[in-house]
Amino acid sequence: AKTLRIGMIAGDGIGRNVLPAAQRVLEAVPGIPKPTFVALDAGFEHFQKTGTALPKETVDTLKSECTAAMFGAVSSPSHKVAGYSSPIVALRKEMDLYANVRPVKSVEGHDPRMVDMTIVRENTECLYVKQETIEDTPQGRVARATRQISERASTRIGRMAFEIALAAAQVKQQRGAAASAYGWTGGPTVTIVHKSNVLSVTDGLFRESVRKVAAEYPNVEVNEQIVDSLVYRLFREPEKLSTLVCPNLYGDIVSDGAAALVGSLGLVPSVNVGDSFIMGEPVHGSAPDIADRVPSIANPIASIRSAALMLEFMGYVEPAAKIYDAVDSAIRAGHVTPDLGGKLSTDEVTDVVLKAL
Amino acid sequence: AKTLRIGMIAGDGIGRNVLPAAQRVLEAVPGIPKPTFVALDAGFEHFQKTGTALPKETVDTLKSECTAAMFGAVSSPSHKVAGYSSPIVALRKEMDLYANVRPVKSVEGHDPRMVDMTIVRENTECLYVKQETIEDTPQGRVARATRQISERASTRIGRMAFEIALAAAQVKQQRGAAASAYGWTGGPTVTIVHKSNVLSVTDGLFRESVRKVAAEYPNVEVNEQIVDSLVYRLFREPEKLSTLVCPNLYGDIVSDGAAALVGSLGLVPSVNVGDSFIMGEPVHGSAPDIADRVPSIANPIASIRSAALMLEFMGYVEPAAKIYDAVDSAIRAGHVTPDLGGKLSTDEVTDVVLKAL
Ligand SMILES: CC(C)[C@H](C(=O)O)[C@@H](O)C(=O)O
Ligand SMILES: CC(C)[C@H](C(=O)O)[C@@H](O)C(=O)O
Repeated sequence: AKTLRIGMIAGDGIGRNVLPAAQRVLEAVPGIPKPTFVALDAGFEHFQKTGTALPKETVDTLKSECTAAMFGAVSSPSHKVAGYSSPIVALRKEMDLYANVRPVKSVEGHDPRMVDMTIVRENTECLYVKQETIEDTPQGRVARATRQISERASTRIGRMAFEIALAAAQVKQQRGAAASAYGWTGGPTVTIVHKSNVLSVTDGLFRESVRKVAAEYPNVEVNEQIVDSLVYRLFREPEKLSTLVCPNLYGDIVSDGAAALVGSLGLVPSVNVGDSFIMGEPVHGSAPDIADRVPSIANPIASIRSAALMLEFMGYVEPAAKIYDAVDSAIRAGHVTPDLGGKLSTDEVTDVVLKAL
Repeated sequence: AKTLRIGMIAGDGIGRNVLPAAQRVLEAVPGIPKPTFVALDAGFEHFQKTGTALPKETVDTLKSECTAAMFGAVSSPSHKVAGYSSPIVALRKEMDLYANVRPVKSVEGHDPRMVDMTIVRENTECLYVKQETIEDTPQGRVARATRQISERASTRIGRMAFEIALAAAQVKQQRGAAASAYGWTGGPTVTIVHKSNVLSVTDGLFRESVRKVAAEYPNVEVNEQIVDSLVYRLFREPEKLSTLVCPNLYGDIVSDGAAALVGSLGLVPSVNVGDSFIMGEPVHGSAPDIADRVPSIANPIASIRSAALMLEFMGYVEPAAKIYDAVDSAIRAGHVTPDLGGKLSTDEVTDVVLKAL
């Protein structure tokens, strides 16, 4: 029998408060092998204690023992701290988790606006290669960073986007009348987000590589949009957007913008996907201002949905769907944390979701 | 007596349709020297005809004859066109117009939401230095772009932002009750937008340089926000944002997002500012789908407001204020183009504004 061993990297701040919710839901959901969990260290707080943000042991354990992982959140000092480098960025690269998939969906029958889009963000390169230099010149210091876009990474993220577009269209098809009532018109679509009017070589390569993949998916409509005007459209007509494929940094920015459309960053899940490993991760940050309250008021939904997304990408589609439905029903019933206008604690929301499972 | 000679670079698409509106308003507004105008070429269409996107003559005439300029819009082919490079990006650098100032304001007594922010965008570097390379490797092609952030450019854009924050606070002070009814709490504020949690060297230098300027402005509150969460806040609580200072690309993206908050890109003006030259420019693009209709339906407001902004930055504060007020009254009366739900043409809206002057 398959086993499911999940690395649990809580990280900083509310990461600690919301990851237990994901664990409880994974323990309770029917239809998957009984999971076991291993707590692993990473984060800025861990760095402050030990001088290491991402211990080698964490990576080694993920690689040798774990089927998948959940990551909580990480605090980002905005000033340069000698020796510190974001452990989540490092982890994505170390584990070659090349796609960051971020579905942003409103809850049917609850939210006024129909939003049902998935941001497929390249997760290993762009400015995140973190190759930076600085030099003194007679006019003052000049810093430079390298933005890398490769054919290989663009092709594989493109393929991921087309697969997701097909799956998303199928789900919408099942929702049928409901989806079309909200203006959904039909087939799967991928929108390539780029800025090749300025970055003709790097974003030109991204665009061209994704378009080349498109040939393998004749049933998927392909269009494209310059990143600045995509952000404009995101807020003017989000209903019309479906699967977006983005270089790393645009994906980072666009997904936070999209999260604003559904009411709270505390709702939006993501999954980091590689060819042989999957790691769920809420899109929100460590929210130090509300971390570790007693009782905790951190919204556990992004974390719970990220666990579901992790299962979905491991092939456990039915169990994932059960979790999504349970979460939606909690939201519809108003059983939510203060960020959404509710009065429940982290644990109480999780209790409601568990009951609905 | 001072003279005012304005270079008029219509560019592509609706640039041609909206720039005449700016000209008519500049001819009519009291309180400025009688302006003369010189039409100058640039754009993708000009490139297609002549092989040159930004003729040397245009730059020479601006430098030798003109006090200021207005730029319309430029079409951006998203695929690489051999020999073509965006003339607006080139012009900003050629004329050393190092600040792109983009006020995004809702109309009092008309828009449901109070938005009153100004994006101060660095206009000469970041990824816009356009240093890109591409190489063949055994794993496929790899492209690289350089992102440059200098102390000099960051310092001067920082200074511009603090000056603008002071001026903006004064205007709000004059509006007094109205502003505070909308939640405005007081003093001038500058928010530094960056991503130094990932780009600790380049965005670190940007952040540090602006903070150093802050010491010269003890009365201005300084805070900062990571660009992704800034875009989130932009849509969750735009009322709380005031003057934002951004590296070039973040400024590009954030200002399109902000434009979505006030109903249409067709409303948002900008001005490109250097130490010795000013160029007004609507934030919208060339909108080829609606260009050159008869009668034209392109919204002239962004262009008219850009002319006012140009005057404001030349020191003609009163005439600029007159134009802003005339535009606001046209909007309040619903005398607008179809993008805002109105029925008027470009010329008819301009007529209304002229009458209100
Ligand atoms: C914390 C930060 C490094 C990270 C990123 O930029 O990828 C975060 O914003 C995210 O979206 O996961
Ligand atoms: C047309 C394009 C090169 C330009 C830019 O990216 O600066 C535009 O988007 C703008 O905001 O003025």
